[in-house]
Amino acid sequence: MRNFDETNITTAALARISNAEDARTRAISQALVRHLHAFIREVEPTFEEWEAGVEFLTRVGHFCDDKRQEFVLLSDALGVSMLVDAINHRAEGGVTESTVLGPYHVKGAPDVPIGANISPGATGELLLVTGTVKSARGEPIADALIDVWHSDEHGLYDVQRPELANRSTMRARLRSDSHGAFRFWTIRPAPYRIPHDGPVGEMLEAQGRHPWRPAHVHFMIEKPHYRKLVTHVFIDGDPYLESDVVFGVKDSLIAELQPRRGDRDDEQPGEARPGGHWHLEYDFVLASA
Amino acid sequence: MRNFDETNITTAALARISNAEDARTRAISQALVRHLHAFIREVEPTFEEWEAGVEFLTRVGHFCDDKRQEFVLLSDALGVSMLVDAINHRAEGGVTESTVLGPYHVKGAPDVPIGANISPGATGELLLVTGTVKSARGEPIADALIDVWHSDEHGLYDVQRPELANRSTMRARLRSDSHGAFRFWTIRPAPYRIPHDGPVGEMLEAQGRHPWRPAHVHFMIEKPHYRKLVTHVFIDGDPYLESDVVFGVKDSLIAELQPRRGDRDDEQPGEARPGGHWHLEYDFVLASA
Repeated sequence: MRNFDETNITTAALARISNAEDARTRAISQALVRHLHAFIREVEPTFEEWEAGVEFLTRVGHFCDDKRQEFVLLSDALGVSMLVDAINHRAEGGVTESTVLGPYHVKGAPDVPIGANISPGATGELLLVTGTVKSARGEPIADALIDVWHSDEHGLYDVQRPELANRSTMRARLRSDSHGAFRFWTIRPAPYRIPHDGPVGEMLEAQGRHPWRPAHVHFMIEKPHYRKLVTHVFIDGDPYLESDVVFGVKDSLIAELQPRRGDRDDEQPGEARPGGHWHLEYDFVLASA
Repeated sequence: MRNFDETNITTAALARISNAEDARTRAISQALVRHLHAFIREVEPTFEEWEAGVEFLTRVGHFCDDKRQEFVLLSDALGVSMLVDAINHRAEGGVTESTVLGPYHVKGAPDVPIGANISPGATGELLLVTGTVKSARGEPIADALIDVWHSDEHGLYDVQRPELANRSTMRARLRSDSHGAFRFWTIRPAPYRIPHDGPVGEMLEAQGRHPWRPAHVHFMIEKPHYRKLVTHVFIDGDPYLESDVVFGVKDSLIAELQPRRGDRDDEQPGEARPGGHWHLEYDFVLASA
């Protein structure tokens, strides 16, 4: 159990972990050792490159606080989050597709009634969001908890704007009515760059990638006896639909913004104009648990 | 470039990185994506397990400061550091073997003359360390920079003891003489647990492993035209030589402590006794650069 070199270190590390009491911990730890060692064997890092890796991860950790999760950004940017999402949503034909949670969800957003304006204090083009929540058999799901959040007209979430960070705006929780329907007023979100002033931003630049995401509204929908749905609705025509930095776009999640005449609570079809608004409609289908 | 699922997300992430300007960055990034995705595909983490992974890495990052490097501990404990070391020291027959740097090296330790006591303010059994630095052809290497550091009698480094943290003790830099020889006085180091009050300690416990390292003295030896040597000398008879938590022990790096009569600067052979001291002798052989 000593004199470790390239030929025996991986076996030794796996043997050391074989005493783990919990079988799942053992399996994850051993897989981690095997794949991490395989990465090192392929890349053959110099000592300086290993040091740079340690320093990179340390900076990712130091960028994490209650307002920012740089490891989630790293997972998103490397396609890991979407892979985990895909693995956990196999064979769910006929239900709304999922996508990444992202780093901006906040637990305990304000509870609002149907029809409320969820964006007090935020400016932008007026947007009405309507839709339904149904089962795969087409039955309306009443009283589903709909947790919704999105960016402002500059692509910033409330937590990224110091003056709004403690106000919980452009986010809310509401419940579907007896027909499974919901509606709320808000402002039109914009495409945005994921936070790129940190190590993940540096990584993207070194990899020759842009940090943009197409405009979207996040939805997390929950109802007992159904699988929790975590997804976005993307806005059609966005220039970044083809190159979302976190690989999150699916055709079935893209919806058109319809221009409507009239102000809030006056939904007439027609052209967008001062005093008019946009309308986004999306019907969600939940899988049974 | 959208609608990513299990079958195409890895290819898509690799394609996105293919624009990286620097070929080495591209190769490392693409290998990272491939091995990380392979790990995820094997483990098939639930969303909660992915969250636990993000939370673990975040806590590792938050444990890192100027006195503690938890990512180095993680790399050490998973056998990654020793693998990187082995890859970087292939085919170096006849020279002193290397081992991990560890997290306790401090740049800019005090420069001391040959024969100095490097452990002012520290208590323990007196230890004399002597040796030589030579080339693979047996020629003495004069004026080699010998950076040395080790733990105290309780297994703690100066940086782990608040009252010593700013005193730089049990660490020093000295230079070999014209015969390649060096000697210094210090105290006998003890086996120790790597810092295990953080996430790496929790990982070791979950993996059914102890956090112990056998007693050792660290050496980093540099001289122009030779490869920098980073290694330890381990003390023979230590109970943890067979199960070093960081996989660092090699037979060629184990030396016996010889008991000697007499106090400092009075090196007579014989039994250790109050007023006596231990003697550790080790001859280093550097590879040509």
